[in-house]
Amino acid sequence: MAPSVQEIFPVKPTAKGDDIHSYVLRVFRCLIADLCQQYNGGHPGGAMGMAAIGISLWKYSMKFSPNDPSYFNRDRFVLSNGHTCLFQYSFHHLVGYKHMTLEQLKTYHSRELDSFCPGHPEIEHPGIEVTTGPLGQGIANAVGLAIATKQLAATYNREGFPVVNNMTWCMIGDACLQEGVGLEAISLAGHFQLNNLAVMYDNNQITCDGSVDLTNTENINDKMRACGWNVIDIEDGCYDIAAIVAAMAKARESTDKPTFINCRTIIGVGSDVQGDAKAHGAAFGEKGVRNVKMANGLDPDIKFFIPDAVYDFFSDIRVRGDHLTSDYTTLLSEYAQAYPELSAEFESRRNGLLPANWSSLIPASFPNEPTASRKSSGLAFNPVAKEINSFIVGTADLSPSVNMIWPGKVDFNPPDLQTVCGINGNYGGRYIHWGIREFAMAAVSNGIAAFNKGTFIPVTSSFFMFYIYAAPAVRMGALQELQVIHVATHDSIGTGEDGPTHQPIALPALYRAMPNLLYIRPCDSEETAGAWKVAIEAKNMPSIISLSRQNLPQYFDNSCRDKVRLGAYVFKENSAAHVTLIGVGPEMRFAVEGAEVLAQRGIEARIISFPCQRLFELQTRDYKRSILKCPELPAVVIEAFSPLGWERYANASIGMKTFGKSLPGMDAYKYFGFEKTLIADKVETYLKSIKADPSLRYEFQDL
Amino acid sequence: MAPSVQEIFPVKPTAKGDDIHSYVLRVFRCLIADLCQQYNGGHPGGAMGMAAIGISLWKYSMKFSPNDPSYFNRDRFVLSNGHTCLFQYSFHHLVGYKHMTLEQLKTYHSRELDSFCPGHPEIEHPGIEVTTGPLGQGIANAVGLAIATKQLAATYNREGFPVVNNMTWCMIGDACLQEGVGLEAISLAGHFQLNNLAVMYDNNQITCDGSVDLTNTENINDKMRACGWNVIDIEDGCYDIAAIVAAMAKARESTDKPTFINCRTIIGVGSDVQGDAKAHGAAFGEKGVRNVKMANGLDPDIKFFIPDAVYDFFSDIRVRGDHLTSDYTTLLSEYAQAYPELSAEFESRRNGLLPANWSSLIPASFPNEPTASRKSSGLAFNPVAKEINSFIVGTADLSPSVNMIWPGKVDFNPPDLQTVCGINGNYGGRYIHWGIREFAMAAVSNGIAAFNKGTFIPVTSSFFMFYIYAAPAVRMGALQELQVIHVATHDSIGTGEDGPTHQPIALPALYRAMPNLLYIRPCDSEETAGAWKVAIEAKNMPSIISLSRQNLPQYFDNSCRDKVRLGAYVFKENSAAHVTLIGVGPEMRFAVEGAEVLAQRGIEARIISFPCQRLFELQTRDYKRSILKCPELPAVVIEAFSPLGWERYANASIGMKTFGKSLPGMDAYKYFGFEKTLIADKVETYLKSIKADPSLRYEFQDL
Repeated sequence: MAPSVQEIFPVKPTAKGDDIHSYVLRVFRCLIADLCQQYNGGHPGGAMGMAAIGISLWKYSMKFSPNDPSYFNRDRFVLSNGHTCLFQYSFHHLVGYKHMTLEQLKTYHSRELDSFCPGHPEIEHPGIEVTTGPLGQGIANAVGLAIATKQLAATYNREGFPVVNNMTWCMIGDACLQEGVGLEAISLAGHFQLNNLAVMYDNNQITCDGSVDLTNTENINDKMRACGWNVIDIEDGCYDIAAIVAAMAKARESTDKPTFINCRTIIGVGSDVQGDAKAHGAAFGEKGVRNVKMANGLDPDIKFFIPDAVYDFFSDIRVRGDHLTSDYTTLLSEYAQAYPELSAEFESRRNGLLPANWSSLIPASFPNEPTASRKSSGLAFNPVAKEINSFIVGTADLSPSVNMIWPGKVDFNPPDLQTVCGINGNYGGRYIHWGIREFAMAAVSNGIAAFNKGTFIPVTSSFFMFYIYAAPAVRMGALQELQVIHVATHDSIGTGEDGPTHQPIALPALYRAMPNLLYIRPCDSEETAGAWKVAIEAKNMPSIISLSRQNLPQYFDNSCRDKVRLGAYVFKENSAAHVTLIGVGPEMRFAVEGAEVLAQRGIEARIISFPCQRLFELQTRDYKRSILKCPELPAVVIEAFSPLGWERYANASIGMKTFGKSLPGMDAYKYFGFEKTLIADKVETYLKSIKADPSLRYEFQDL
Repeated sequence: MAPSVQEIFPVKPTAKGDDIHSYVLRVFRCLIADLCQQYNGGHPGGAMGMAAIGISLWKYSMKFSPNDPSYFNRDRFVLSNGHTCLFQYSFHHLVGYKHMTLEQLKTYHSRELDSFCPGHPEIEHPGIEVTTGPLGQGIANAVGLAIATKQLAATYNREGFPVVNNMTWCMIGDACLQEGVGLEAISLAGHFQLNNLAVMYDNNQITCDGSVDLTNTENINDKMRACGWNVIDIEDGCYDIAAIVAAMAKARESTDKPTFINCRTIIGVGSDVQGDAKAHGAAFGEKGVRNVKMANGLDPDIKFFIPDAVYDFFSDIRVRGDHLTSDYTTLLSEYAQAYPELSAEFESRRNGLLPANWSSLIPASFPNEPTASRKSSGLAFNPVAKEINSFIVGTADLSPSVNMIWPGKVDFNPPDLQTVCGINGNYGGRYIHWGIREFAMAAVSNGIAAFNKGTFIPVTSSFFMFYIYAAPAVRMGALQELQVIHVATHDSIGTGEDGPTHQPIALPALYRAMPNLLYIRPCDSEETAGAWKVAIEAKNMPSIISLSRQNLPQYFDNSCRDKVRLGAYVFKENSAAHVTLIGVGPEMRFAVEGAEVLAQRGIEARIISFPCQRLFELQTRDYKRSILKCPELPAVVIEAFSPLGWERYANASIGMKTFGKSLPGMDAYKYFGFEKTLIADKVETYLKSIKADPSLRYEFQDL
């Protein structure tokens, strides 16, 4: 049996002002001041103000194990105000994480290349659940971690076997309540009734510009209640550990709501600049640090002072953590005996593995009729999603458009929620209605993926254009090497009547430039299947699969799902070619049709399909040359986006120089020159021009 | 004297169910059904459900003039749920906008190239204040329009001369209450006490996926009240015109809060699919349209039926509008006599003009010591901002970092707000603390700019990395040709310790690819001054000025402010050059220092400064060739970003292939190879490699 919360945390803090607490708080705050002073930089104020919250959390409230930072059922902690990272690093030191020695702690802001103490917490390091810093996203990640717990619990827990029942704790500052993504995530958490989520608000009412009321005067408690949260006020967040611990216990006991613990604190408490924006992002200076120590009754001449009494105070935590992990091992082993099949799947997912047969679930063939690649995507992936519990699929309110619903899909929603439209769900559901919240969709999905790498593969979906809303989170997924698959439909001017607001032109350049991300743009159903295979195999990076709204011709004699992984391949060879045409995604039809018109005019073209630049860059030089045949042949890329970046592979572009236009899809294409005769005219003129003036050959031309 | 509201709107709607209202509603709803059916597409449901709100607004509440759609003191209307554009187009027809004939109305979703009825409202067209469609942004634009009114009123109104006193009306659907940018804007509007803003919520509880409670179950009225809004409930938003008009009148009377009018409506009311998501984004089919007409008591065989009684109902509006504009002309002329100087400035701003001397306010020279370009930016621009009322400058809570504060700046804030930090303001202030809300900062700024082109030039500021949060609004500014200047500091890995979360790598590719936007990256103070000149002169496009956190060497012998407008220019010529080095922004130092090391090794380099690709593309071929000297010389670009797009101008790149790293700025640079000796080594090796294997010469190399 799993131990009760009372068994895990037998010791409770006593009265406010308790001697040892006061001592630990004082030592901690002076340590933070020293750590910022040594390289004259960093963020001291928040960490100092939050010290009592830290003691309440790590000492009295959080299930974790310093000796096994990644034990599966640990409580998750997210520092959404990531600039206060010294808060987390210093507690990690005090509670006994092995890697976080005092020497390590001192590498903060140093030139040390292998520091565990970067300027914001980074997921690669022990005890760090997600990389934070870009404000508002950490709280969204925390919502994802809490969803992951809920979903796993509903799937795998059985009577007497709570194999997943962890809490998620999230620390935020004022910024996370101002950033839109934080507000989206808060709304979602309330809706989903995530009772396993607690947010501690470091309410110091100070940001860089001054006091928060310069820019925000709302009633935050009322707002959180309106969003479906419990609210607990802590009047003295700097010192009242007993109250904070009681609030955290109450949060853990909540049955139907996430909990917002509003802790009034003082930024840089005990320093000369306490309560002032100056305490936020700068060291205090030598004199200021001495004053901090004197104000706290410590010797101003001693730096990095951590007496044994402080270590002793935290010394039970490693023991407690060892108990937690050994109890959990026992629980898992009893669970394996009681539920062998369920346990096997759970173990496989804990190990980040998919069933061996996953790729066989993708259909071997597709209808040979014009098909929108958003439809192909559903045909390719939905059978996989249906069978494999690792996939948790959602949409930013575009279910009818993105084709991500498999037969029998169940929504992730509170089981007692009875919707007006009659679509109900439960916490075991794997289809998420994110609402019209693209940014949170991606940021929360990062959190789900970060619960334990590979346990979930979140899949998001929306129109490609609105992945510009989600971009900051897609980026954070790439930075953190989190596998999240983004299904981006309506990916061109072919989207049509919705017009330029909905037609992406520049966005692909962002995603092609972004490190550790695959932007894949298949041209037909076969390539769409290939894109899915690549994306599912890419364990340590997000992917964007870019799909058409409109029907596309199928090229089953030319396209090849297994060549998508090469990034580009010869689609149609032609030994007599005068020119190479590069076709991309939905615009492949213009390359193929244009080549036919050119052939009628005696101009021979070979065609390359180029679904993914990043994958192509990974190939050998020989392979690349065999595909591009450059400089022997001039190459023209045909894609209805900004050509930025195609200059690497082509000599000229038929692309977009302006925003799009509201017209029926094929009319929009034609308006901008994407039509077989217009294409052929441009290529023919281009070939003549470089013949007449060879100096143009190596200057990229926008046709 | 300006007429009172009672004088403008003498007629009030009578009891609910009033015959003519019912008739107009029925005709209107059938018209919408017809307009979607003709090309079998579009969004009928919202427009039909909102019909009573439309009558309340255009007939009874809004100050506007169909004969003079851009009269300066008109009420602004924003359709934030832009997909319901037929709502606006159809009312524009009925109230008598000349361009919006019935024939024009029928071009919705047609192949007509010159349609005034694109799939979402577009700012180019009469009566459309902002382009909407990307959800959540319209309401943020509306907040900007309301801020513009407040600021102009505080600046130019005098006792008896309310030369600016218009309302802003904004229509939203459920999405704008889910999107983070909408929530940011709502928070700001409450904080700023924008009593001149009213939001009508088309509360039909339906989105694409089904009923809203699938994804949102918060108490929206409580949430709005917590954010500082008045809330008025309308139980029957489909029919109760009297109640809606009364609410709108109350909104106009509000003295200290924006007003949220929560109108319960039924999507697609009167159709077979009323109240269902199916009514949202598809035509009803021939049979469905017939049923709509029969349900509304109209002849199912008649299409586009608009009887004279309906036109008659709206026939007073043109007359009323003519009175409004002639009264306003009179008011302005009396104002000119009473306040000649103020009136002259106001007129100049109404005409979108800056004082002729603006560029002389930029200092003629700068300190010749290492200076961060974020500091140079303040030196260059703040004297301009100080003197010229057209500039309204803000920051997403980075005042201490972005250097945008001029001596004596006054905050834009409610005059009765007494902040804890003691920084107070008034509505005449021109410095806006946006809070940590980058997206709203940019979207609201678009609204300010859209109030009347050129009357304001909004300037935003934040770290460059966080312009990824603002990207969807920066894009909408570019699409709408709105002049907003974005000051983006900390623009490289040189930002240092904050680490990879704060170090942009891919983002420049987005902005370089984006149509109608200038992304300018100056290398020193002179070029920073040049960047400001270009940005201020670019009347019909936004600019991003990309600036360093760290100190940069000044190159006053080489850099040239007036050449920034050329996009690129020769920084250091060398007739014996073996290679061209392209230096960009803060990385110019590595080009210059690298060239010195190369020279010691007998390798001669010439150097190009390349602050803006878009501006360079505008130059003549001859000019471009004179700068690039390609293919005579190989060119290496040195920039700590993804090289995507530089392939057009260079043969090789010293750039970034991964995300950054938390290290002190210069250590981060060195870690990634940006250091003079490492640069020289790479260039030398490259030159050897292309000599040994000339085939490499035209294959872009990442060094």
